[in-house]
Amino acid sequence: MTRPPISYAESGVDIDAGERAVELMRSAVARTTRPEVVGGLGGFAGLFALDVQRYRKPLLASTTDGVGTKIAIARGLDRHDTIGLDLVAMVVDDLVVCGAEPLFLQDYIACGQVVPERIAAIVSGIAAGCALAGCALVGGETAEHGDLMEPDAYDLAATAVGVVETDDLLGPDRVRPGDAVVALASSGLHSNGYSLVRRVIRDRPLDEVVPEFGRTLGEELLEPTRIYAKDCLALAAATGVHAYSHVTGGGLAGNLARVLPPTVDAVVDRATWAPPPVFDWIGAHGPVAPSELERTLNLGVGMIAVLPDGPAAVRLLVERGVPAWIAGEIVPGSGEARLVGAHPR
Amino acid sequence: MTRPPISYAESGVDIDAGERAVELMRSAVARTTRPEVVGGLGGFAGLFALDVQRYRKPLLASTTDGVGTKIAIARGLDRHDTIGLDLVAMVVDDLVVCGAEPLFLQDYIACGQVVPERIAAIVSGIAAGCALAGCALVGGETAEHGDLMEPDAYDLAATAVGVVETDDLLGPDRVRPGDAVVALASSGLHSNGYSLVRRVIRDRPLDEVVPEFGRTLGEELLEPTRIYAKDCLALAAATGVHAYSHVTGGGLAGNLARVLPPTVDAVVDRATWAPPPVFDWIGAHGPVAPSELERTLNLGVGMIAVLPDGPAAVRLLVERGVPAWIAGEIVPGSGEARLVGAHPR
Repeated sequence: MTRPPISYAESGVDIDAGERAVELMRSAVARTTRPEVVGGLGGFAGLFALDVQRYRKPLLASTTDGVGTKIAIARGLDRHDTIGLDLVAMVVDDLVVCGAEPLFLQDYIACGQVVPERIAAIVSGIAAGCALAGCALVGGETAEHGDLMEPDAYDLAATAVGVVETDDLLGPDRVRPGDAVVALASSGLHSNGYSLVRRVIRDRPLDEVVPEFGRTLGEELLEPTRIYAKDCLALAAATGVHAYSHVTGGGLAGNLARVLPPTVDAVVDRATWAPPPVFDWIGAHGPVAPSELERTLNLGVGMIAVLPDGPAAVRLLVERGVPAWIAGEIVPGSGEARLVGAHPR
Repeated sequence: MTRPPISYAESGVDIDAGERAVELMRSAVARTTRPEVVGGLGGFAGLFALDVQRYRKPLLASTTDGVGTKIAIARGLDRHDTIGLDLVAMVVDDLVVCGAEPLFLQDYIACGQVVPERIAAIVSGIAAGCALAGCALVGGETAEHGDLMEPDAYDLAATAVGVVETDDLLGPDRVRPGDAVVALASSGLHSNGYSLVRRVIRDRPLDEVVPEFGRTLGEELLEPTRIYAKDCLALAAATGVHAYSHVTGGGLAGNLARVLPPTVDAVVDRATWAPPPVFDWIGAHGPVAPSELERTLNLGVGMIAVLPDGPAAVRLLVERGVPAWIAGEIVPGSGEARLVGAHPR
């Protein structure tokens, strides 16, 4: 018995679709470029000329992250042009925590089937995020895993690289008693805790209008993550910052504790802000215990700055359009971040 | 009706398992370190001190890749400690194509369930690959996608960053008629074309002993990818190299054409090598047409060097334990890579 020959395309990898996706994403990617980028898409590697005259002892900082299961919301709404913003936010805002300027980013997309328009929509969101963060999208990989993933399933990851002068490195060493703890508002759930959130909403349709949100459940849950990178760099340059903490998995206290030296505590007063309605709604509809909410979700604070001059920082951030407030202070202690008081009702 | 409260762990994200995985991988990761690495695992970002005294005009090169569906073979054999070598090979050997020294790498693992021992095995392979390539594993992300992936499913990606002096950048500009085309042997299928390969073998058990391979089908298909990075850097330093081509998806001709200027052709003589048995076996058992095999798999050549002194290059590579031979030459032409002749039987 002679069997018909097998081709690579028949085995689930469509090279033409991949090439069409690259064509469709080209202009969005080009808009993220910086003068330091050498060459374009298509080489074996992305190239970035580091201006060594600008640095005495540069540290290259790198971070990798994904967007977790927020992707399931994008799939549920069949809306793919904002999840890339979430992806960029996750990585570049881990970079600026140490004071590094994001320089360039590489993305990875795994999917069941390369639908060129969908891949291009995802990449347009990544490119939009890179533009907001000031970094260049210098390369990436789209992998088609035909028989391992459902046709419309995908996953995203990205790695960003930044640079910081060694003497300007931010972190626990600089933090001292008397520093203010300044909270920068989140835009919503950002991109953490979606396994919990999706468990809570599992029997509810994404197109249900929720009065507290003034929009549908799906729109609320897909709200793109605020990208703080440029604001954090501007703040550090203008007022001096001792440490940043990016509030992701682990919540406010868990992430703030990561940038405390063992000789101080951070005391954060819940009374200084009211979490946006989505957090209460999730707590009520789970139900999810307040302590569990607090260590899984951001509860309205997406980034924290620890610095000497709280009022100046709040002024600068608000002028830049980032809602911010003094949420607490650094006191002598043992490296703990303590939440005290109660949120206003 | 009061429902019991939902916790994050119950929703499919096991934070303790993640922390155990990090503990288990710690020593393997530590072995990849370089003097330039600042701090350890656990910060928001990986930090690498670039010695700017060593470079006049450094270019940072970056690449991202995954291992495609070779992961299904690792899962099928329940053997996870070598797929990380494949991952590192895919990224660092795209870096050295431009002459860049790999400096550091970040990995991304998405999985249905964090089984600490399995994640640690994967990362131990990544760390082993980094050690072979001379680069530091400075960070990564393990994401648990509880309800989106099967418990024992996972996917891998990595981004590597390297550096090359602008004046030493390799590529098409340097290639000229008379250059030798030197082939570096692959160790097997490497990590491309597995959707095709798995389609061919789909009704065969991985533990079937295949006489031509002298081992089981699964062992042959999981053979780790040879990592050329250090050999390529040594060759470029010793004999001068004009261009490298990493033979991945697209095969030898497709990838070689990517590093040719429009004024030359590369003529590669198939008679200079016999592809290892696995390639013939896949062609016969598909069946897969020879032309399709040739543009999907590496057929025994994993890396190509284009350079003036072929014999010196072959000598150096063979001394370093990399089987290599002169496979062709560069002639005046129009930017094509042409395979001529027939493989010996």
